[in-house]
This record gives sequence, C-alpha cells and structure tokens, in this order.
Amino acid sequence: MTQLEAQDPEYAARVRASFEKQRFMATIGAQLTRVEPGAVDLELKPREDLVQQHGFLHAGVLASAADSACGYAALSLMPTGAAVLSIEFKINMLAPASGERIVAQGRVIRAGRNVTVCHGDVFAHTNGTQKLVATMVATMMTVRDRGLSD
Amino acid sequence: MTQLEAQDPEYAARVRASFEKQRFMATIGAQLTRVEPGAVDLELKPREDLVQQHGFLHAGVLASAADSACGYAALSLMPTGAAVLSIEFKINMLAPASGERIVAQGRVIRAGRNVTVCHGDVFAHTNGTQKLVATMVATMMTVRDRGLSD
Amino acid sequence: MTQLEAQDPEYAARVRASFEKQRFMATIGAQLTRVEPGAVDLELKPREDLVQQHGFLHAGVLASAADSACGYAALSLMPTGAAVLSIEFKINMLAPASGERIVAQGRVIRAGRNVTVCHGDVFAHTNGTQKLVATMVATMMTVRDRGLSD
Amino acid sequence: MTQLEAQDPEYAARVRASFEKQRFMATIGAQLTRVEPGAVDLELKPREDLVQQHGFLHAGVLASAADSACGYAALSLMPTGAAVLSIEFKINMLAPASGERIVAQGRVIRAGRNVTVCHGDVFAHTNGTQKLVATMVATMMTVRDRGLSD
Repeated sequence: MTQLEAQDPEYAARVRASFEKQRFMATIGAQLTRVEPGAVDLELKPREDLVQQHGFLHAGVLASAADSACGYAALSLMPTGAAVLSIEFKINMLAPASGERIVAQGRVIRAGRNVTVCHGDVFAHTNGTQKLVATMVATMMTVRDRGLSD
Repeated sequence: MTQLEAQDPEYAARVRASFEKQRFMATIGAQLTRVEPGAVDLELKPREDLVQQHGFLHAGVLASAADSACGYAALSLMPTGAAVLSIEFKINMLAPASGERIVAQGRVIRAGRNVTVCHGDVFAHTNGTQKLVATMVATMMTVRDRGLSD
Repeated sequence: MTQLEAQDPEYAARVRASFEKQRFMATIGAQLTRVEPGAVDLELKPREDLVQQHGFLHAGVLASAADSACGYAALSLMPTGAAVLSIEFKINMLAPASGERIVAQGRVIRAGRNVTVCHGDVFAHTNGTQKLVATMVATMMTVRDRGLSD
Repeated sequence: MTQLEAQDPEYAARVRASFEKQRFMATIGAQLTRVEPGAVDLELKPREDLVQQHGFLHAGVLASAADSACGYAALSLMPTGAAVLSIEFKINMLAPASGERIVAQGRVIRAGRNVTVCHGDVFAHTNGTQKLVATMVATMMTVRDRGLSD
C-alpha cells in the first residue's frame, strides 16, 4: 500500500524550496538532512530558547519538527502542483529531550489520493547513542486547486 | 468529575513562575492572560518568523501554545510540590491560522491523581471576531518525588 | 465555521438507513436516539458480553459508539449521494464505564468539503446522574464517486 | 528504553487469564495468538455482525482488537499484582478491512513505571497476503493498590 515512488521527478527540489519558506523551521534551527520519496529527516540542536520549565526541549518543538518531517515526507509523494496541509497529528513524549542534536524522521505509511498518513519518530543523539524521545502519527491532506502550492 | 478547586492556594503564582521558565514561550511571543483553577489562556501575535510555507502560523506554534495552556491548566489543580509533564497530545487544525492575535485556551476536563486530561482550543481573533482554528486533547502527568518541580 | 444546516433535506432518513446497515451497532445493542444536523446521539446498555477484564465496558465499545455517533453527525451535513468514512479518531477514557445506560454524543465542530472534525463525548447514566466517561476527537472523510453510498 | 524482559515470570499465564475475562473479546471472536514480553497478537475473522454500513469491519472492531493487543503487551511487562487500564488511544484507518482474518499486533515502545506506550498495527490477511489496514498508538497505565488486578 505504501507508495515509495515519487510522481514528481523534482520532488526533492520542491520539498527543499517549500521548507525554506517555513520560517518557523529557521526559528527553531531545524535543517533538512534527508529527502527521499516518502522519507524526510530534520535535525536541530537543543538551545536555551527552546526549552520548557525543566530545561528540556518543549514538547511543541518536538511536535513542530516531527510535523514538518511528516508533512514533507507526504509532499515528496504528491503530484506536481499539489500542496500539503496538516489535518491533525498526535504525539507521545517518551523521554525528556536534550542532548547534542535531535533528529525527526517522517515516514509515509499510507499515501492515498487525498489523505496521507505518516509516522514521525524523534530521536535525541548524545555521545554517539540515540534515544527515541517522541513518536507521532500525522494525517496530511493533498490540496489541489485552492491557490496554494508548495 | 472535573475538579475546579485548586489544592495549592499559591497556584496562580506557581503557574506564572513556571511559565516564565518556559523559554520557548518567550521565543514564540506567548503570554499568560488567564490563570484560574483548571483554566489557563495564552496569547500570541502572528509573526513572520512563526509561519509555515503558505504564510500561516505553523501547526507546531499552535500545538506549542495549546500544550502549554493545557499543561498549566493541569498544574493549577495539582498539589504543592508536584510538577507537570505532557504525556501526549493530539491536535486537529481546523482553519488556516492568521489574524491579529491567537488565543489558546486550556481547560481541565478530568483531574485524577496521576493523570489529568485537558481540552485546548485555539482561536484566531481578527477585527473583533474569533474563529476556532485548532482543537487539542492533551494528557498530562502529575510528577512527584523525581527531582522535578514547577 | 461550523455548518449547522443540512444540505440534504432527507438527512435524518439517510442517517437512520445507514445506521441500520451497521450490523456491529446491533451487536453491541446501540440505538439512535437523536439525529439533528451535526448532532447525533447513540445509546446502549452495559451488558456482560461487552466488558473488559475488570467488569467495566471495554474501551473498544465506547470507541465504537462514539465513532458511529461522530460519523453520523458528519454524514448529516454531507450532500446527497456522499458517503462517510472514518479517517482516524482519538479517545481518552476518563472513568470506568458502567451504569444503567451509556450515551455517546457526536457533534460536528468543523465541516469542510472533504474533511469533517467532530467531538464525541460518552456519558454513563446511573440513578439520574450522568458522568463523562470518555471523550473523542474524530476526523471523517466525505467520499464521492467511489461506488460507496450511505 | 523499551523493556523486553518480563518482571513477572508468570506473565503469559496472567495475560491469558485476564484476556479470558474480557468478555467483549469473545463477542467479537478475538483470540490470543502470541504472548511474549512486550508483544501480543490477537486474531479474529470478519463476520457479518461486525460490519459498518459498507460491509467492511467497523472501525470500532479494529480499535477494540488493537486496544486489547496493546493493553496486554503492556501488561506482559508489568510487575505481579499490577493491573492495566487504557488511558487513551488514537487509530488511523488506512484501508477498508475485510478478508479471511484480521491480526492485531500490540508492541510496547516505551515501558515506564506508571505509563506504557504501545504501537498497534492491524493487518488483513487474504489469499496469503497481508495488508496494513489500521495503525494505533496507545497509552496504558499501570494500576497498583486500587483493588484491581489482572
């Protein structure tokens, strides 16, 4: 069921151009590190301006990175000219998030005509080890003909 | 079932002090505008550094504000010395978020000994009208005796 | 944004006819008790063959009733000839469910062209009092031209 | 973080005994087919009394099976004398569910002292092939000293 071939041969350029327009990703310091059909990774570094009250990364930062990773994983499989919108997501926080860098991995598990479902896993990397700190399921919509493009 | 009386008479000061430590709330420009037992509101203004690729507020910004509103609504009912952690949340995006200001309302719907469940609604205010742009359900944990405090 | 007027004047008959085809609702003893535009209630009685290991109603029974209530609340606002499918739902269990009867209330909070979002609340009624035992958020899809109808 | 060793050497007998008490599992025809530490599978056969209006398995049936699979995967790692309760779950329906048999796989991804998080995947098997028809994330609570046991 999972569709792993991109319909748009320019999918990677399209994902990168759209990501550049997501100004909030720059605000939290997130960068694209992998763009493949149905699979997108983002990375960011923990910073003092991203924390909650106990000094760990705010759950909203993890959610933001995982949502963008999932959205772009979905977009990578969409036809030319379509845009992606987040319908909804759910995230479980599994461990306090800190460390040297955070990697959010978005993976398409079902790509439909209108709705794409993704898993997003967030890992904290420290001293060469990685730990799963959050897991997301996200539902993305393919938007056509509404004046939006990516 | 909903518990609307604070156990800690200093609940409002405790919520405000903890919120000040959430550096990420300052990063997105969110401010506390209401602190009552089981009910906390946050506000922020849309800004260019908070947007996704179409110029609307990033879903992660809405989620961050709603998560903090829910978390502090939960904390307001917790006993002195306890801390709050987000176990998980789910958010549906209902309309593109823009406008003059965004209000995230966290409301406790069930306060248990260990687990508190909250609804979070996010409204966009423009020209005197408000529109529901996102709705969250969040599960919060009461943490005791783990070296965390709020 | 919520659309409270039915597009299909026969919406109530359509909902009732479709509900009758949901054989699983008969299996758990659920009955339609309210059908209005964007608002559908179901009721069922706790029975020994619906319980989990502690003698309370299984979370899946609550989810089943709330999902159908939400789906039919969504369908009540859809145009003639469309069908409804559940994209996803999330449910929090707030208290053990038992009592004389269980009422699941589905309410549309946002009706879009393709996607409708609903809240579903499940109440246990005992001795004239009601208690909120579960709360759901559900995302429903309007299906056209796929050979499905309701 | 995932704990794959059972604390209770009698975990399998405990899971099986508790499952037998879940009368609702018998009602939908679900049977335990795998019980390992942190991994539990259930199976059921599509039947006419389990369908929704289009003749596919009701989403609530899929949710019921996945919730029990996740709950027992969680219980398999809990200490002797503890009981398991579902705090919440979220499920995405990925394809219409029918076929010869349905397998729900619950897998623990994080086992904490009070909270355990599981993934639940539901597969439809037909003619020797399997298809992912739903995916769940569930949050389970370890209950001690409340008069409940499994």
